[in-house]
Amino acid sequence: MLTTHEMQIRVRYNETDAMGFLHHGNYAAYFEMGRTELFRAGGGNYREMEERGNFLVIVELTCRYRKPIRYDDVVTLTTTLAEVSPAKMKHTYELRVNGQVHSSASSVLACINREGKVQMYSNAIIPGIETLMK
Amino acid sequence: MLTTHEMQIRVRYNETDAMGFLHHGNYAAYFEMGRTELFRAGGGNYREMEERGNFLVIVELTCRYRKPIRYDDVVTLTTTLAEVSPAKMKHTYELRVNGQVHSSASSVLACINREGKVQMYSNAIIPGIETLMK
Amino acid sequence: MLTTHEMQIRVRYNETDAMGFLHHGNYAAYFEMGRTELFRAGGGNYREMEERGNFLVIVELTCRYRKPIRYDDVVTLTTTLAEVSPAKMKHTYELRVNGQVHSSASSVLACINREGKVQMYSNAIIPGIETLMK
Amino acid sequence: MLTTHEMQIRVRYNETDAMGFLHHGNYAAYFEMGRTELFRAGGGNYREMEERGNFLVIVELTCRYRKPIRYDDVVTLTTTLAEVSPAKMKHTYELRVNGQVHSSASSVLACINREGKVQMYSNAIIPGIETLMK
Repeated sequence: MLTTHEMQIRVRYNETDAMGFLHHGNYAAYFEMGRTELFRAGGGNYREMEERGNFLVIVELTCRYRKPIRYDDVVTLTTTLAEVSPAKMKHTYELRVNGQVHSSASSVLACINREGKVQMYSNAIIPGIETLMK
Repeated sequence: MLTTHEMQIRVRYNETDAMGFLHHGNYAAYFEMGRTELFRAGGGNYREMEERGNFLVIVELTCRYRKPIRYDDVVTLTTTLAEVSPAKMKHTYELRVNGQVHSSASSVLACINREGKVQMYSNAIIPGIETLMK
Repeated sequence: MLTTHEMQIRVRYNETDAMGFLHHGNYAAYFEMGRTELFRAGGGNYREMEERGNFLVIVELTCRYRKPIRYDDVVTLTTTLAEVSPAKMKHTYELRVNGQVHSSASSVLACINREGKVQMYSNAIIPGIETLMK
Repeated sequence: MLTTHEMQIRVRYNETDAMGFLHHGNYAAYFEMGRTELFRAGGGNYREMEERGNFLVIVELTCRYRKPIRYDDVVTLTTTLAEVSPAKMKHTYELRVNGQVHSSASSVLACINREGKVQMYSNAIIPGIETLMK
């Protein structure tokens, strides 16, 4: 574990489906918020990173749905930067409701420029990231 | 009525909410599809319009929800270009299920350039639009 | 103005569109959050209201989009219960970024039961609502 | 491969994000459409299945994002029922644009009843499914 962040998200009505559960496709947006806030907590700013022409794109996302999550539940999201190499960043996620794990997930991100070309992670792109690489 | 278009859309599961209805916030995406296809049917292409640097933005949207729409319903969307002036384009919409009107709506669109500056509608932006203006 | 509530919402990446703006269809979810929190601030709980078999459904929504809202913007949403009658509840909304109004909107809500039949608003459905009716 | 289905989906504007790509969280809705249509093509109807009290829930979803998908692209989705056992159903997916694979994915579904209790797949729940089980 390199660095971790915890935040709370209240499930919105429009995020539920006819079963009354948080629709499984909406978990990805929660994980994205976790990454954004983990980055901000470390002094970064993803909007400014994009303005400088670097974009983080998802290469792979795996999600395990263990227990359903419901409308108005307050979910605790833990986002962990688990691994960094010059070509990829791996995060893991847990979603808890009342202390119980309802979902766990992981993602791999690459960095591209405006032309869609893959960029190696470096301090020029994300200040301080080189100290986290193996 | 200047020009009109009809298409069918099947309601997706993720578009429903805990009531089992098409969530009211998702109607806007249907109307947007209607505008896109009305434009395409007239020989236009909205993606290419954006690539040339012109963007249509919503200025106002009003929607009446008369009867609920459900998962897997096949909805018939009628999109009508109701009014064009140099500064705005007004569309009206109807959503029917089994011949009955479940929703009606209207929108006003302005055109902006990459810098966000309002552009007057002209044949240079949308070929043929000047003949539709009052 | 009967009662009002203010909250802050940070725009999520998945809520933006190819223009880089908060997609206009996503405003409805923000207004819904405003109503939920206004209700909670007054001692109500919309989830429990549904569990008791009463559902608030949107009858009409009108939204004016004045200035674009961007990814990562912190939006201040003001939700006001503007009018209550036995058959309908009217809310108005304002979205501000850095003190400037970017959008204003209004909605009308009816109450239905599990069978979809319209219910008159009463203290039995929403405690205290009768004192707000004209 | 037990049974397979192919359909085309045009990317909607509201499904894109500020990068101009189909947002990665929206792929799940496409795969869900693929499952629904695969089921329909085999004579089933998921809405009626839910009305009878059986619900298919996602247990696991893995998605590889190989190339970006853009607004207005016409995506060909291939959905394959890859494996069925009494407790789980595994699907695989491919998304192609102009013949090239842009994404591949897989999911595992369980069946629950109204009380959330896991149901074993059987012909009573999905007619004909027992002949597909190993």
